[in-house]
Amino acid sequence: MEPLASRSADWVGEALGLELTRPALQPQPLNRRLYQALRGWIQSGRLASGSRLPSSRRLARDLGVGRNTLLEAIEQLVAEGFLETRPGAGTFVADLPFGTGEAPFEPSATPPVEAPEAALSRRGERVLSFCGPSEASHGAFTPGVPALDRFPRELWQRLLKHHQRDAPEAWLAYRTQGGVPALREALCDYLRLSRSVRCRPEQVLVVQGAQQGFELIARMLSDPGDAVWLEEPGYGGAQACFAAAGLASVPVPVDGEGLDLARVPPGQAAPRLIYVTPSHQYPSGVTMSLPRRLALLEAAEAHGAWIVEDDYDSEFRYGQRPIAALQGLTEAARVIYVGTLSKVLYPGLRLGYLVLPEALVAPFRRANARLHREGQYAVQAALAEFITAGHFSRHVRRMRDCYRARQALLRRALAPAVARGLVLSEGQAGMHLVAWLDDRDIERALVVRATEQGISLSPLSGYYLRQPGRPGLVLGYAGARDEEIVRAGEWLAQEWLSLVGAAAADR
Amino acid sequence: MEPLASRSADWVGEALGLELTRPALQPQPLNRRLYQALRGWIQSGRLASGSRLPSSRRLARDLGVGRNTLLEAIEQLVAEGFLETRPGAGTFVADLPFGTGEAPFEPSATPPVEAPEAALSRRGERVLSFCGPSEASHGAFTPGVPALDRFPRELWQRLLKHHQRDAPEAWLAYRTQGGVPALREALCDYLRLSRSVRCRPEQVLVVQGAQQGFELIARMLSDPGDAVWLEEPGYGGAQACFAAAGLASVPVPVDGEGLDLARVPPGQAAPRLIYVTPSHQYPSGVTMSLPRRLALLEAAEAHGAWIVEDDYDSEFRYGQRPIAALQGLTEAARVIYVGTLSKVLYPGLRLGYLVLPEALVAPFRRANARLHREGQYAVQAALAEFITAGHFSRHVRRMRDCYRARQALLRRALAPAVARGLVLSEGQAGMHLVAWLDDRDIERALVVRATEQGISLSPLSGYYLRQPGRPGLVLGYAGARDEEIVRAGEWLAQEWLSLVGAAAADR
Repeated sequence: MEPLASRSADWVGEALGLELTRPALQPQPLNRRLYQALRGWIQSGRLASGSRLPSSRRLARDLGVGRNTLLEAIEQLVAEGFLETRPGAGTFVADLPFGTGEAPFEPSATPPVEAPEAALSRRGERVLSFCGPSEASHGAFTPGVPALDRFPRELWQRLLKHHQRDAPEAWLAYRTQGGVPALREALCDYLRLSRSVRCRPEQVLVVQGAQQGFELIARMLSDPGDAVWLEEPGYGGAQACFAAAGLASVPVPVDGEGLDLARVPPGQAAPRLIYVTPSHQYPSGVTMSLPRRLALLEAAEAHGAWIVEDDYDSEFRYGQRPIAALQGLTEAARVIYVGTLSKVLYPGLRLGYLVLPEALVAPFRRANARLHREGQYAVQAALAEFITAGHFSRHVRRMRDCYRARQALLRRALAPAVARGLVLSEGQAGMHLVAWLDDRDIERALVVRATEQGISLSPLSGYYLRQPGRPGLVLGYAGARDEEIVRAGEWLAQEWLSLVGAAAADR
Repeated sequence: MEPLASRSADWVGEALGLELTRPALQPQPLNRRLYQALRGWIQSGRLASGSRLPSSRRLARDLGVGRNTLLEAIEQLVAEGFLETRPGAGTFVADLPFGTGEAPFEPSATPPVEAPEAALSRRGERVLSFCGPSEASHGAFTPGVPALDRFPRELWQRLLKHHQRDAPEAWLAYRTQGGVPALREALCDYLRLSRSVRCRPEQVLVVQGAQQGFELIARMLSDPGDAVWLEEPGYGGAQACFAAAGLASVPVPVDGEGLDLARVPPGQAAPRLIYVTPSHQYPSGVTMSLPRRLALLEAAEAHGAWIVEDDYDSEFRYGQRPIAALQGLTEAARVIYVGTLSKVLYPGLRLGYLVLPEALVAPFRRANARLHREGQYAVQAALAEFITAGHFSRHVRRMRDCYRARQALLRRALAPAVARGLVLSEGQAGMHLVAWLDDRDIERALVVRATEQGISLSPLSGYYLRQPGRPGLVLGYAGARDEEIVRAGEWLAQEWLSLVGAAAADR
């Protein structure tokens, strides 16, 4: 189509009639089709800047449409600045730099091949380096996913329904209470009795998942460039959050007693934050010893640092009750306790919470309400009832038995490999085991072969900040059905045996 | 209680019997009370480091409790490192620096008076400076809250119930799809037809509210210290997010045509991000003119900057259809479109979305799944049906009528003041009006008096980054019932008249 130089546009009626029959415009109401066709012509320069439209009466007649329908389209284009009305003179195309060959907007158009240049920032690239591939999975060996097949969905849906129905209208609006009071009380009681956390309901801040808690902590208590000490190996989700907040990550090795402060690399700046999973280190499964806990509290005090205690799956301890939280070990400990409902309920729920020292309650609550906003109050109320009515404890007990049994199944399936030297982590707790490997090539080969089998294997070396990490596999067993675990475990044992046999033959 | 120097602790049985009767320990099971009493004694030094406990057989007998119950407590303390068993010799208090007078943990204890020093970081203080007081309100004059009394709750609850029941199990797990496909499709259709956004469903990324979208954009596309150009006056929630991400905020004045790039302060660095609300500027209510839109797109192109288009309430335009989005104005525009469901549905829902250029889809999706995690898939599916079944459009139409009527009520209530010179914004759209004031003292006095009346008045000067801002009031009228608006409006008119009269008399 060549642009029409004419300052008037009497040709519009006929051409527009044809245009409206184009398939791309068909599904829309007529006034919308008129709008889009005219706008397309203006933007492409077919209707030249400054040209006058035929009168609406004539145009409507030429098109065989109602004048009001046409006027709606024209008014919209006037409101958006594509057309101008000059009193007494008519309607004109605005005098703007249109007609650069720009393709008109079409509602069904696929996006252009030539996308704008999309360079991420350095921060964005750094964040991305902590992100796995975009495919999520669940089933055998995916770490961190609970037994969704055993979650009491009907009961939970009943609670949701009741609380959605009964929620006060104000709960739909913006809130700044730190969460539904009943939930903060229920969590507080649970934490005091089951986790020996020292708290009052006021100190609990409900957030949309533990990740949001980490973000809030990082932004409120640290500045870019500050050091955060992290467990090595450790949890990638927390690593990513702290990286996104511009913190300098200092990996501190974990041994059989947990984070070992004696092995902080020499010459390090004092940390602002120290991130730990003391009850059940992720991913190694180690419980931090009491001497290490006391030393850690002392170090935080000495450095004026805050300990971020991520208590992600401590409910699931098989031999005895869960290990008491670091937070409650001493009075006025410099600890922010982070809890999640992703493991006991389910990850898609997006609810977690912080237990804050008194002095941080007000600023954190204000900042959270501004930066992240509060919400899901009916779901929070349902969760409160789930806890106070005893469903939470009951579900934890059942899942403890379920996970213990699933771990046993996995161990049995892996037994032929273990008999030949494969080393597994102790596993008195939690939802995963670690298989330690001697060799990165074997780690890599197993991951590749597993992918071919549709099994998602997490290489342990990926949990290290400082490369190369120790090779191994993080084997989630909680979220898969029994038969899946057995099948995947047996497959893994055979693959390991064949690879190790091959490696031995190579020597 | 003085510490007992004795290396054996035969006194424990009797003393423990007394201790268990303390009211603070009463509500718990016996093994838990034993655990806490013993742990308290160890931590306080009453049971000295290295001292030997009586045999469990004797201790159980002295206490009159079952031996298994006692052993559970002891095993827990061994697991947590407070006690040690030495084979053949018995159970000993661990040799650790206990006994510093530390108060033992008590489940009912209120937190200590002496809280740890809780200094926020400079970043934290900066974030806080963008946060209002912690009290949220709704009702007359609270901006941004929709008519919650008119939301079709029963219908919505029915949809929620169905989709919660029908959600595939995998939806409860971690997801990396960018949101439920049906919702991305429904949003995409809506945006193309109603907002002239150019997109395909793949480009839509569902997030937990627009705020989370701003955070993701800031972190993926900018580095600390980069400049963000912001509308002045503008939206505090976005200001806070960009401040939290370490960006340097450059306020750019808004006039009757929207953001005026000609008034960027001289000598500014090129922006990385430009945040705008072109359809209905927040809070002034101005629509950005087409020449300004074209200039803005060109400037973004020239600077290699990204425009963040926050289209928070454009659905509610009274005279004609909503103004088309900036995003769809040209092909391959450097625009990230940010939408929210907080205004059409309700804020507590916590759902929003981004429309990303193709090249940013994969990295944003990966980073979002890692940093924020996806969730609420059943709610997303319910929302998809709410849109495709036409409830969304119907509700928007009803709310448009409702808000137009409520705005008219407010204008009528304020008419006596307007007759004496109070200037209101045009208000062809949206959920709030601005009353421009001449005088900061009057602004301040009105806010104070309103608070006394339980009315939440938002001072316009608080929306400015550069102080002192222009005085005025942001008057939300959408979220209050008709009679509340009338009452609050009449009150405001009277107060304004009396203050202006007093000010005139002062001169």
